[in-house]
Amino acid sequence: LTRASPHRPHGLWLIGARGSISTCVAYGLAGLNEGLLEPLGMCTERPPFERLGLVPLDQFVLGGHDVCLRDLSSSAVELVHHGILGSELIAAGAGFAAAYEARIRPGILDEPEVGLADLDPRSRSLGSLAPREQIEALRSDILSFKSEHDLERVVVVNLASTEAYRAESKAWSSLAELDGALERGEGLPASVLYAYAAISGGCPYVNFTPSRGAGIAALRELALARGVPHCGNDGKTGETLVKTVLAPLFTARALRVLSWQGYNMLGNRDGAVLADASHRETKVRNKNEALRELLGDPAVHTHVGIDYVPSLQDWKTAWDFIHFEGFLGAKMSLQFTWTGSDSALAAPLVLDLARLAAFAAKKGEAGEMLHTAAFFKAPIGGGTHDFHSQFRALVAYAEQHLGTPRTRN
Amino acid sequence: LTRASPHRPHGLWLIGARGSISTCVAYGLAGLNEGLLEPLGMCTERPPFERLGLVPLDQFVLGGHDVCLRDLSSSAVELVHHGILGSELIAAGAGFAAAYEARIRPGILDEPEVGLADLDPRSRSLGSLAPREQIEALRSDILSFKSEHDLERVVVVNLASTEAYRAESKAWSSLAELDGALERGEGLPASVLYAYAAISGGCPYVNFTPSRGAGIAALRELALARGVPHCGNDGKTGETLVKTVLAPLFTARALRVLSWQGYNMLGNRDGAVLADASHRETKVRNKNEALRELLGDPAVHTHVGIDYVPSLQDWKTAWDFIHFEGFLGAKMSLQFTWTGSDSALAAPLVLDLARLAAFAAKKGEAGEMLHTAAFFKAPIGGGTHDFHSQFRALVAYAEQHLGTPRTRN
Amino acid sequence: LTRASPHRPHGLWLIGARGSISTCVAYGLAGLNEGLLEPLGMCTERPPFERLGLVPLDQFVLGGHDVCLRDLSSSAVELVHHGILGSELIAAGAGFAAAYEARIRPGILDEPEVGLADLDPRSRSLGSLAPREQIEALRSDILSFKSEHDLERVVVVNLASTEAYRAESKAWSSLAELDGALERGEGLPASVLYAYAAISGGCPYVNFTPSRGAGIAALRELALARGVPHCGNDGKTGETLVKTVLAPLFTARALRVLSWQGYNMLGNRDGAVLADASHRETKVRNKNEALRELLGDPAVHTHVGIDYVPSLQDWKTAWDFIHFEGFLGAKMSLQFTWTGSDSALAAPLVLDLARLAAFAAKKGEAGEMLHTAAFFKAPIGGGTHDFHSQFRALVAYAEQHLGTPRTRN
Amino acid sequence: LTRASPHRPHGLWLIGARGSISTCVAYGLAGLNEGLLEPLGMCTERPPFERLGLVPLDQFVLGGHDVCLRDLSSSAVELVHHGILGSELIAAGAGFAAAYEARIRPGILDEPEVGLADLDPRSRSLGSLAPREQIEALRSDILSFKSEHDLERVVVVNLASTEAYRAESKAWSSLAELDGALERGEGLPASVLYAYAAISGGCPYVNFTPSRGAGIAALRELALARGVPHCGNDGKTGETLVKTVLAPLFTARALRVLSWQGYNMLGNRDGAVLADASHRETKVRNKNEALRELLGDPAVHTHVGIDYVPSLQDWKTAWDFIHFEGFLGAKMSLQFTWTGSDSALAAPLVLDLARLAAFAAKKGEAGEMLHTAAFFKAPIGGGTHDFHSQFRALVAYAEQHLGTPRTRN
Repeated sequence: LTRASPHRPHGLWLIGARGSISTCVAYGLAGLNEGLLEPLGMCTERPPFERLGLVPLDQFVLGGHDVCLRDLSSSAVELVHHGILGSELIAAGAGFAAAYEARIRPGILDEPEVGLADLDPRSRSLGSLAPREQIEALRSDILSFKSEHDLERVVVVNLASTEAYRAESKAWSSLAELDGALERGEGLPASVLYAYAAISGGCPYVNFTPSRGAGIAALRELALARGVPHCGNDGKTGETLVKTVLAPLFTARALRVLSWQGYNMLGNRDGAVLADASHRETKVRNKNEALRELLGDPAVHTHVGIDYVPSLQDWKTAWDFIHFEGFLGAKMSLQFTWTGSDSALAAPLVLDLARLAAFAAKKGEAGEMLHTAAFFKAPIGGGTHDFHSQFRALVAYAEQHLGTPRTRN
Repeated sequence: LTRASPHRPHGLWLIGARGSISTCVAYGLAGLNEGLLEPLGMCTERPPFERLGLVPLDQFVLGGHDVCLRDLSSSAVELVHHGILGSELIAAGAGFAAAYEARIRPGILDEPEVGLADLDPRSRSLGSLAPREQIEALRSDILSFKSEHDLERVVVVNLASTEAYRAESKAWSSLAELDGALERGEGLPASVLYAYAAISGGCPYVNFTPSRGAGIAALRELALARGVPHCGNDGKTGETLVKTVLAPLFTARALRVLSWQGYNMLGNRDGAVLADASHRETKVRNKNEALRELLGDPAVHTHVGIDYVPSLQDWKTAWDFIHFEGFLGAKMSLQFTWTGSDSALAAPLVLDLARLAAFAAKKGEAGEMLHTAAFFKAPIGGGTHDFHSQFRALVAYAEQHLGTPRTRN
Repeated sequence: LTRASPHRPHGLWLIGARGSISTCVAYGLAGLNEGLLEPLGMCTERPPFERLGLVPLDQFVLGGHDVCLRDLSSSAVELVHHGILGSELIAAGAGFAAAYEARIRPGILDEPEVGLADLDPRSRSLGSLAPREQIEALRSDILSFKSEHDLERVVVVNLASTEAYRAESKAWSSLAELDGALERGEGLPASVLYAYAAISGGCPYVNFTPSRGAGIAALRELALARGVPHCGNDGKTGETLVKTVLAPLFTARALRVLSWQGYNMLGNRDGAVLADASHRETKVRNKNEALRELLGDPAVHTHVGIDYVPSLQDWKTAWDFIHFEGFLGAKMSLQFTWTGSDSALAAPLVLDLARLAAFAAKKGEAGEMLHTAAFFKAPIGGGTHDFHSQFRALVAYAEQHLGTPRTRN
Repeated sequence: LTRASPHRPHGLWLIGARGSISTCVAYGLAGLNEGLLEPLGMCTERPPFERLGLVPLDQFVLGGHDVCLRDLSSSAVELVHHGILGSELIAAGAGFAAAYEARIRPGILDEPEVGLADLDPRSRSLGSLAPREQIEALRSDILSFKSEHDLERVVVVNLASTEAYRAESKAWSSLAELDGALERGEGLPASVLYAYAAISGGCPYVNFTPSRGAGIAALRELALARGVPHCGNDGKTGETLVKTVLAPLFTARALRVLSWQGYNMLGNRDGAVLADASHRETKVRNKNEALRELLGDPAVHTHVGIDYVPSLQDWKTAWDFIHFEGFLGAKMSLQFTWTGSDSALAAPLVLDLARLAAFAAKKGEAGEMLHTAAFFKAPIGGGTHDFHSQFRALVAYAEQHLGTPRTRN
């Protein structure tokens, strides 16, 4: 671990602070800092990124927003039962987690929010404020955290459950329009309010969810105006990751994909939320879009299913069936089954992105962090979905900062 | 299809001329030229390669060597029964195939050859000649074919069954050593004799098999001396192709592969030959080597099984199980099943390589065709096994010849 | 083949006479009678059934109803392209198929029928008749076929596409109610009219589809009254077959099934019809019902998906994921992929059932053929869905008729 | 749990007492008795077996033999890390496990034993005794355990690692021959000595391993002479269980199995021992034998692979590919992946068998317990491998004892 560099502490502010991913981030950071864990799943601990002088992992102070009252340790116990967190981590991370827990503040609810059992009443109260006031409350939480802990910078990461899909709105098309809507007290997705709060507060922002967040034109404008780097949307952790590695193979080999059927099953809170069709829509769109681009065939037959299977808990299991045609019209197939812990896959990416966002801010880079496309199902800046191409762009970014010549291929 | 350019006919000389792949090449070419087939599986019919001015597909004249007497049409009927060739192709390609059949000459046997039922007695006779004389007989066949059909150039492609594994030999280490061994009449792998014949005859040479062929130091020296381009070894058609696309994903994401088990089942003549352990060894080595390099872990637990399952005929079915570890020590898995016709996957690559080899020769390029690594399990010129990197190198080669700037990423 | 017994010809009247299954039945029968095929997939050619003296396969005369104009040979050519029928069968069966084709009569449309491109205009005309008149037209077709060919008996088998789901209706609850509805000219599912025609005409009836057919109380009453044996519903050919073999394993071993997710993909006309949710409903119900009964847990989490994937044509591919819990709370899984030609699986069952239905009629057995439960997803007579138990009942039926003592276990 | 019946305590003596399965038996029993676990995986807690009045689970006292020094709690900690035992069970079962640990005595080594790191030196010493003396030492351990704890009966279960394969020997062919060999001090498999000790001591004996044990003719004779019931060999826990459920399906449906390839991967100590070909042979034979019988085709192409994949630990993962032919010669496939904890699957069967063996002894039944075939890959008494038939025989046995009429089917 790169602990030597003379960094002041940085804040990592997690929206959805008591969810599975945040819990993995918290106990994982504790475990890494105690030397109990290896930094698997994190590319920033490897060449060439390790030489960038990123924020050392032991210099992160955690805080966040959540709308639920369930405490962090009960999330942790659940993850132990699911075989994701080891019980020794719970013991070792207890102090770190308790300190984090004490810094979690009530978040805001998305309007068409799925009814949650253990909702924080303070979140309900926040909901009665005008949107502009909600933004101010959120920003104030983050900036208090920053000054209280004397942090050099706070990176805000949205890890909350997927919001219901909203069609593009004129109110999102420019900062002026958005500010007008706020003046008029018009409803906005919670993810937009969070992103507004973070960016207007000068905090680099990472949208790990499929929700709108900073991806709308108005906030992209705000980020440039405020000189704040940001990235998103929708962390590419599992089935889509494999898809965006495999699809370019078919294109390169000139094999025609006839059908690509993907069936996802998951049993965590994310799965429960996605069981609702309006919440599922954005995710399915992101997963499908990548395929159409990579296969270069807008008419290719694809299907993305997402089913809630409670017994699987955090263990996402996906089956993809790819039917393709080769020379002589021969029909062939590739099928794969992916079995992974969604939270354990996401958490290290959150740490990677927090470090990269802090780095970009330090270097004065503003707006979309185009080099982070490899982390997302729907990169804000667009571009290819080909994972290997995206990852090369990330390496190239690092090498440019390091002043090293780009490695061949 | 690029038929317009002012090319004179080219020869495509196939070693293993009556085997499944050769049969697919012959009927496939006929079908393409009749407009019955699309050029699926061939990258050279797509951008940017289609602009290189490669040999038009209708300018290839086929000939070859084989040690078996089974005639081409019985191979073809078998492939119809296996669901690989359509019966309409048999009708449409009958004339083309008969002309090809008439140009097939008896080949030479590899010393420890698996006993074959339908062996050509002329191949047995050739075996009684000294190695040097065998080379001369083979070269004479190829050069007669060239002059008889007034061919601009003949590309020789080895598609014969895998030879038994031979350890490196001092006799292969330089051209002088090899010529000495030939003087002394020492036994050499058939693939080496074929390659010697082709290269000494000035013919670009493609080794699509795992056999030694032109990969030995002596013949690489000869190719440079004669100004002949060549490439190999071991066509990357199926399971290994998928492996070399997936493995870089784990490396990029810093996920630790704990075990990679690969089980291959195939039922064609290639499978029957590989049922013999000595013949299987080279193939298993090639398949394993790629993984170790790509995962950057020489100690990773891998296994490659190849089983002969006659009922599968040409339909290679492989199951891979990848066990990996992520953040928090979470153990996850990816498993895939590949079902593909080996011959229908290989044949278009043969056409691609023949065109690229002819192009390299025309451009005066000699020695290993480093840009063709994407086609092989064990590229003679070495380098990464990462398919996407290899394919980018191929695109870069084309763009360099086209004078276009390399596309970003 | 049992050709020796002194049987007079029997009729086999297929509803959906030009569909894939019927085409396989026709060419398959021809191939069996020509000695080109083995009777794979048919249990009635094996012990103990082969000793029952069933109708010899060469004593079946085919006829049927269809609403489409597409001719049988174009169905056959399609099946050749899909790799299901061999082209040698097309040649050998041409005469047999042409004779069959000549005996196909226009069928009736189900009211909410999916718009079909190649609809027979005579079927449209039939639709304008009152239901009672439609029944009479259908019955007259069947009885004319019987007398014209001097057939001992005609077995009617419904192989038409799945109808839209209809809830239970009071009009179906007794024969009197049904006849009242017919008097009043009320609409009824086509499958009910077909079944009424067959049974009232004294013809044994097999409902291989999930449609209502003879399964409604009114027609079960009619069958008993007329002394006609019948069976159904919904042939158990693939994924459900495997399910009803595997599920009892979990029960016997006291392993708790947590979730059973089944994803079916198919690309034939049946798949196109099932792409419509109302048509899919019956099928999904049948598939789910079996699991709930076999696992003895009405609350078990199950899912049955059916997706239309045109490129698969007749090759049904299904993936099932079974998540279960064992001793110590350990969570385990079994997943399977089934790849089978639906038509080639169904056709031999149609022949088995036709023979068993003719046998039951000869023996004077009326009403539900309880011993045929092994053939159906939703056996009309109810009982366990456990395939092995169902099959034992079938064997016991045969042994009872043969007068042999039942074999132990 | 059936705790009410007036049973005196029974002994359960485990050979391989510190192995994974024994550890699961011990902590599992503790967890069941503490009400922390449900009796999943055990059929004897369900109808009709629960009414037989079997030994209540809280009346079992554990003891055993082992050749390793590794203590039980370290086995348990390993199983916690592998996600098989919950950490709460470790706490709850600590007292029970410690008492068991104190009753474990040094076992004997099999001659060609795989070199084990943590061998008990007392086991080495036992090895220097004559076979007859070894038997006496083992029997004395068991009988001391019985009297010390005032046990009504002791059931001995062999759970040790698989021994190397030994061909049939004349010395095993009758009790007289075996006693002669013992007189002469000839070497015998350890499993035979254990079985001799148990049976001659009047203890019902269960051979859960593929080793010879009580399956040799001499010991079957001894068991009858001593009036002792016994059963074996080779617990049917996973892939073979699924095989013996699926194979009868193909037979019943008259589908011809062309090839059945099974690939097993496991990473526990059992896997390490099976990595050695001589130890693997018996297991592979048992797995293959079942298929040949069930498919009724001695020439069917089958393959059983067993690979040691350490990272999988106790999580056995198996992939089977079944290639089959149906009507019209259509080739289809079924493939399945089984992922299960071998120890958690085996442990409840051990409890079931211990109870059934004690019951048989109480009822005065001697010799092979034919009704237990469902539990074994190679039932000593032979008979069909069809799991559902075997299980019906078990149910019939119970019903006979209960005096209830056999349920239909």
